[in-house]
Amino acid sequence: MAKKQVFSESEYRRRVRETQERMDHQGMELLLVMDPANMNYLTGYDGWSFYVHQGVIVSLTDEYPLWFGREQDSNGARLTSWLPESHLHGYPDKYVQSRYIHTMQYVAGLLRDKGLGNKTLGLEMDGYWFNAKMFVELDEQLPNATLMDATNLVNWVKTVKSPPEIEYMRQASRICNNVMQTAVENIEVGVWEKDVAAKVVAAQIAGTDEYGGDAPAIFPIMPSAERTSSAHLTFDPDRRYQSGDVVLLELAGARYHYHAPLSRTVFLGRPPEDLQKVAEVVVKGLNDTLSYIKPGVTAEEVEERWRSNLKGTGVEKPSRVGYSYGLNFVPDWGEHTVSLRPGDKTVLQPGMTIHFMPGIWLDKYGFENSEPFLVTEQGCEKFIDYPQQLFVK
Amino acid sequence: MAKKQVFSESEYRRRVRETQERMDHQGMELLLVMDPANMNYLTGYDGWSFYVHQGVIVSLTDEYPLWFGREQDSNGARLTSWLPESHLHGYPDKYVQSRYIHTMQYVAGLLRDKGLGNKTLGLEMDGYWFNAKMFVELDEQLPNATLMDATNLVNWVKTVKSPPEIEYMRQASRICNNVMQTAVENIEVGVWEKDVAAKVVAAQIAGTDEYGGDAPAIFPIMPSAERTSSAHLTFDPDRRYQSGDVVLLELAGARYHYHAPLSRTVFLGRPPEDLQKVAEVVVKGLNDTLSYIKPGVTAEEVEERWRSNLKGTGVEKPSRVGYSYGLNFVPDWGEHTVSLRPGDKTVLQPGMTIHFMPGIWLDKYGFENSEPFLVTEQGCEKFIDYPQQLFVK
Repeated sequence: MAKKQVFSESEYRRRVRETQERMDHQGMELLLVMDPANMNYLTGYDGWSFYVHQGVIVSLTDEYPLWFGREQDSNGARLTSWLPESHLHGYPDKYVQSRYIHTMQYVAGLLRDKGLGNKTLGLEMDGYWFNAKMFVELDEQLPNATLMDATNLVNWVKTVKSPPEIEYMRQASRICNNVMQTAVENIEVGVWEKDVAAKVVAAQIAGTDEYGGDAPAIFPIMPSAERTSSAHLTFDPDRRYQSGDVVLLELAGARYHYHAPLSRTVFLGRPPEDLQKVAEVVVKGLNDTLSYIKPGVTAEEVEERWRSNLKGTGVEKPSRVGYSYGLNFVPDWGEHTVSLRPGDKTVLQPGMTIHFMPGIWLDKYGFENSEPFLVTEQGCEKFIDYPQQLFVK
Repeated sequence: MAKKQVFSESEYRRRVRETQERMDHQGMELLLVMDPANMNYLTGYDGWSFYVHQGVIVSLTDEYPLWFGREQDSNGARLTSWLPESHLHGYPDKYVQSRYIHTMQYVAGLLRDKGLGNKTLGLEMDGYWFNAKMFVELDEQLPNATLMDATNLVNWVKTVKSPPEIEYMRQASRICNNVMQTAVENIEVGVWEKDVAAKVVAAQIAGTDEYGGDAPAIFPIMPSAERTSSAHLTFDPDRRYQSGDVVLLELAGARYHYHAPLSRTVFLGRPPEDLQKVAEVVVKGLNDTLSYIKPGVTAEEVEERWRSNLKGTGVEKPSRVGYSYGLNFVPDWGEHTVSLRPGDKTVLQPGMTIHFMPGIWLDKYGFENSEPFLVTEQGCEKFIDYPQQLFVK
């Protein structure tokens, strides 16, 4: 079959070697990766098959990860991954969502067959994709293995991007620019919220004239009016925009699962004074903080700098103000590694990509104006150049 | 705050009571529900906040489930759930993706504070949203509790739909009809795959002239050419359709997270004879099987009837041929309860909704033609009336 690979083999090999390095330093001989984004990162495998159990196993003594998944998805691994046939293992359909037999029995058998049943095995314990039952089953099936927590191990490797990854993130950024423009242009009093949302998702997929996009890991978050007082609500499918609405836009573009997130806020009519004031404080604080960021500062120092801008303004932001992002699948484009908040000691380094996201939720409405940026050798660089303001229409 | 509820309070109460009945019959005093679709089913809560830990706890002795989630999402619970203020518990942001403190410590504290730390507690062990670390933490934090497996307990309650749920599924079906029509009409030689996919996702959200849709739990699966030899691949963002392409369409409409899935197949040019033959066998077998379905037959008998249609045709379908579906969030619209396959003893009953999905993947390409149906008092009823054929363009 004709493979279509998104990256060169040497890029995948780099990722595997850096994963092995981290494993070795933690005393881990094997790593079970169930997160579809991490599977994709290490192998290129890409399909909406992660609703059944699937994964890859990285070993210190093998240059290739070993893929396992549903038999009917194994052609997908042949087409999209860089792995050789010897490392693809499709399991029979009887394992799918069965009440009698569990996929981890299959995985344990695979490891035993390869003489790997007595190794130190890292597990993504606190990830989305390694559930409680999998853990209990593996623990039972591999009595001679030593199980270790490897939560976010691959995520930390992912956190520093290579030049070809940054190129896809730039492409995603161009898509995101179109997506945001589509939203800001089309939101008007009297227009159905659903119709703007439809245009937004179409822009995400249509991409640019040169290349297509991807569905981002988070559905467009675009609440209006009272719904903006909460984080993470989206459009109302049965409502039209009204005069006096504030509309929060937390949107993204994506390219081969690499993201570019961006938040902006629209007001229909004459905005209340306190919202205008919040907007000014946020935009000023955001830019001051961006000017401070460079390799060597820590994540918590960035948050501290941001917070110093709020002093005396009456604006408060009690949650974290940013997080690293990049290659991801649903339900989150965040990488769960670097957080801009007190206590995070991560020292920023070139190649890290962070979404600086100061979302403010007041009692009755919210304001968001974010910037995704790349840490460079000298400082940081915004991925997107979109006006920073409260958009009043 | 003005609540917007998708169902009446009595409908939510019915769901909670049926959940409590199942819990009681299994000797379970408490149930921790982390699946966002099940949270939504029991409470109405609806936001893209499930990338952080959140859940509801059902108790045998409380008419209301107890909601917990991130503090910044608690206004979302106020706006979308039927729960009273007393049952909403927002946790501080320091718990979010922390390396030092775990949300299950918060949950255990909540249970202990309410004097519920020594109860029998059911857990969605093999679901998507209850991970290994949560299990280990709860087990440690609640030494006096008895932990039980409650995988799919709420899913089984969900499997039989009420009339208002069926109404939303009919609305989703009308959306799905538009979505499929959009795809079949727009796929042409020379057209970018991404541009058709963009129109498809826009149709999913735009819905009908009367109401909007929702993003389905599975992104449109629409591979072309060689990529159809695998399940679950989607469009190629950098390719145009070519003469000789087969295109599989596994699409859905959704309304308030209630789904209507449908699969069809398009061929551009003159289809190979074996594909035409497969199409005829599948459509004939599908309709024969639908005519056989009624309350009282079992899931495995349905599959057997389907398989009897394949005898002597040379067509084989080794995986399950259908599953129950309804209300769901990413990554799957299937309910993980009824499967049309050997060994599934479920007796079909009115109100069950099943996606009969005979997908055939040959070496070089595949064919899909599915039907979602409702089990009625007398037999079954297709939700969608869309031509059953290989679409040749």
